[in-house]
Amino acid sequence: MKKYLAEFLGTFWLVLGGCGSAVIAAAYTETSIVGSDPETQFAFSSGIGVLGVALAFGLTVLSMAYAVGHISGGHFNPAVSFGLFAAKRFPGSQLLPYIVAQVVGAIVAGLVLNIIAHGQPNFVISPNDSNPLATNGYGLHSPDGYNLFACLITEVLMTFMFLIIILGSTDRLAPQGFAPIPIGLGLTLIHLISIPVTNTSVNPARSTGVALFAGPELIVQLWLFWFAPILGAVLAGFVYATLMEEPIVKNISE
Amino acid sequence: MKKYLAEFLGTFWLVLGGCGSAVIAAAYTETSIVGSDPETQFAFSSGIGVLGVALAFGLTVLSMAYAVGHISGGHFNPAVSFGLFAAKRFPGSQLLPYIVAQVVGAIVAGLVLNIIAHGQPNFVISPNDSNPLATNGYGLHSPDGYNLFACLITEVLMTFMFLIIILGSTDRLAPQGFAPIPIGLGLTLIHLISIPVTNTSVNPARSTGVALFAGPELIVQLWLFWFAPILGAVLAGFVYATLMEEPIVKNISE
Amino acid sequence: MKKYLAEFLGTFWLVLGGCGSAVIAAAYTETSIVGSDPETQFAFSSGIGVLGVALAFGLTVLSMAYAVGHISGGHFNPAVSFGLFAAKRFPGSQLLPYIVAQVVGAIVAGLVLNIIAHGQPNFVISPNDSNPLATNGYGLHSPDGYNLFACLITEVLMTFMFLIIILGSTDRLAPQGFAPIPIGLGLTLIHLISIPVTNTSVNPARSTGVALFAGPELIVQLWLFWFAPILGAVLAGFVYATLMEEPIVKNISE
Amino acid sequence: MKKYLAEFLGTFWLVLGGCGSAVIAAAYTETSIVGSDPETQFAFSSGIGVLGVALAFGLTVLSMAYAVGHISGGHFNPAVSFGLFAAKRFPGSQLLPYIVAQVVGAIVAGLVLNIIAHGQPNFVISPNDSNPLATNGYGLHSPDGYNLFACLITEVLMTFMFLIIILGSTDRLAPQGFAPIPIGLGLTLIHLISIPVTNTSVNPARSTGVALFAGPELIVQLWLFWFAPILGAVLAGFVYATLMEEPIVKNISE
Repeated sequence: MKKYLAEFLGTFWLVLGGCGSAVIAAAYTETSIVGSDPETQFAFSSGIGVLGVALAFGLTVLSMAYAVGHISGGHFNPAVSFGLFAAKRFPGSQLLPYIVAQVVGAIVAGLVLNIIAHGQPNFVISPNDSNPLATNGYGLHSPDGYNLFACLITEVLMTFMFLIIILGSTDRLAPQGFAPIPIGLGLTLIHLISIPVTNTSVNPARSTGVALFAGPELIVQLWLFWFAPILGAVLAGFVYATLMEEPIVKNISE
Repeated sequence: MKKYLAEFLGTFWLVLGGCGSAVIAAAYTETSIVGSDPETQFAFSSGIGVLGVALAFGLTVLSMAYAVGHISGGHFNPAVSFGLFAAKRFPGSQLLPYIVAQVVGAIVAGLVLNIIAHGQPNFVISPNDSNPLATNGYGLHSPDGYNLFACLITEVLMTFMFLIIILGSTDRLAPQGFAPIPIGLGLTLIHLISIPVTNTSVNPARSTGVALFAGPELIVQLWLFWFAPILGAVLAGFVYATLMEEPIVKNISE
Repeated sequence: MKKYLAEFLGTFWLVLGGCGSAVIAAAYTETSIVGSDPETQFAFSSGIGVLGVALAFGLTVLSMAYAVGHISGGHFNPAVSFGLFAAKRFPGSQLLPYIVAQVVGAIVAGLVLNIIAHGQPNFVISPNDSNPLATNGYGLHSPDGYNLFACLITEVLMTFMFLIIILGSTDRLAPQGFAPIPIGLGLTLIHLISIPVTNTSVNPARSTGVALFAGPELIVQLWLFWFAPILGAVLAGFVYATLMEEPIVKNISE
Repeated sequence: MKKYLAEFLGTFWLVLGGCGSAVIAAAYTETSIVGSDPETQFAFSSGIGVLGVALAFGLTVLSMAYAVGHISGGHFNPAVSFGLFAAKRFPGSQLLPYIVAQVVGAIVAGLVLNIIAHGQPNFVISPNDSNPLATNGYGLHSPDGYNLFACLITEVLMTFMFLIIILGSTDRLAPQGFAPIPIGLGLTLIHLISIPVTNTSVNPARSTGVALFAGPELIVQLWLFWFAPILGAVLAGFVYATLMEEPIVKNISE
């Protein structure tokens, strides 16, 4: 049970921290008016933007992988569980309970985020916003209007590389204890690249946790954010285990 | 006495660095005018914004936890001391002296920040500013106007998760030596999410250190930033110690 | 073969992540209109800018050096391979296959980036853009108009210092396991300095991978981004091996 | 001689990277015009701003401390050498050669930066710029107009805390191998707080290296950036060694 609580809390934190920073702080505008001459006055926003959201997503994983990685392995993501399974590092019998814990954690985070956000009087889930509640989407719901094909290959590729980073940095030959740093900051990197494309999923639980509260248009696009990340992760699991992992040489004399 | 000096210096640094960067550098406007045609000229600010302030808070803890963590444990925060006490990792007899050292450090930092800030001719603690001196607040004193309920659950939740990160990453089963990284960057993450809500406390000493110099309206709101962080921290201490910690198995033969 | 696959994937990731974040997210404009009065309304961009791109380049190397460094050494850059060869840390017989793997990885990344970018309806490789597809250039193709001489010494110096960081932090006397952190974040630093000069290469493969898709004007400038980084790297290799490395003292009794 | 070369290169990198990013990239304006309607068009800068410069300074130290820390200790700063001397961790006989190597490295960096910057046709060292070449200053040459007193206590305090971080994180009881992370990112933090005050020195060599090329007005202010950092560092050395360091308990039986 410890494991499932750890996965619940980790995925809860990923969605609350990542999507929460996007909803609450990305476009936060502490409108500072600079200068006294109206002609040259200008205002600016001190919101954290895409860079801050990318950092937030990565730091949720970095922080909770150090905190509970020794309990559950620190997946926080159904695609990661599938990828580790494909690489023979995670038992198939644990796939379902892990994924349930992750999805429940994500949904509770979506609910809590919704409650906090509504504490701001001007907050609305607007039909004019292509990605309300930091949801993922393609086509009309891609933040910058990318078509389905571009969104599909982006999600497959980003999750593929995410799993290569995870499998490699937790390899028994890699430096010990460091893995949450490349994994967390690797997730930051993935967001730096792909937020304008799909708002970055690479994680079906994260997508689900907020879509459920954002209306049917976003829910019907969820299939892509289950299909593409899991496909990319499973491919990476096979590639790493087959082509890159050093086999354990048994000492004959043993 | 070494311990109390370490807690004093760490909390001093947290408030001077975190609140100081907010007061001095967040909206710093090196007004660069770009272009020679007045019609298309524009100005911009190079201030560090919410992202820079979030980074600054986290780095105060990361840097001082490595510097004096081996002396005092590196709490720098009454809520952290309470949370560690609830998890049975910190003796109750040390709660009071630790908290005194932390609060005194925070107040000295508030004083010093006040002195430095007044060295800039245009600096004022303005009644139009909802959070002068980077104070915490709710309702009218929430940076983005969040109501009391949203501010309350945000502070409880953020401190709860902060303590889970602290307790987990300093667990004897977690990688050794790394803890200040997830703890410090976890605090950065917490600020990335919640600066627009309460200006982010999760630390009663930090809230107190600057409120005392910012006027009665901010002082009367201090209760929330003692109550909510300590509540969240104590809950996390119980949850971690009860549900997540691996019991030490005594070897019978010993 | 494992080694070449690792170098292929690492360089692929460097170009897809670094140039991809520049093309897709640097100037991404989620045009937020702030305020309801047209006179004081203003819009702002939440793109990641030069800071975000610099972080992305560094994190590609940090993440993949932890992931596959134990397989191939994690060069991802012909100049790095040459520099390690000059410092007698890498066999000359491996130079050609490593560089082929790196360049092929970079070109595949350029191709994939091109495909993804064209999934955005407004994307064009514009002759008005001095650095389409995040290409490197000098003179007319320097992002901020730096002349050839300044671009040349910048690329030589930046690669020289990059190799000093690599050689020093992987020295047997340096702390073990940490090297990908200073190397990756050192590459971020190099981009923070020199993106306005040459758009920052220090890596012939990265320059080649995108130039091939950006038109003849950028391709004819590629010579500089092979010549200068390799020159800087080889100089650093000689300097470190000759002047800075501690010789291994053989124990006479052995 | 290895030591002096290491200090030369490290301080060279600190000034070239820190001041270079400020001069070249802080206010870099890739003027992106957004939108097709002139009424709603707006431009924005993608420069790295104060946040990027703060990161750059810190990463110069993080990267070179890992690279050459095992050769020279990685001071790169006369104030650090004095502080370590005051804490009895550095021999007085080495103070002069270390400081010479540091100052020469800084001046060479100032020279190289000057050459690179002049490769941009519009570059001028303008009398209208309060801090040309990223120089440090107070009063009229404080970036945001802070008076001498505020600048003095800021530099003393920031260097005091910088040395506490250095002395603490390199203490034999602190986690081994991590010190360059809190030291480098601690320097980033110091810049996040104090760039608007003095443009942040805490390092006499860094101040000297660029002031020499920026005109007499900046040179006459150099005294503060030798006096204040060294004072703060020496105070920290005494405080740490006297009040915070654990004495080595000699085992009587040895």
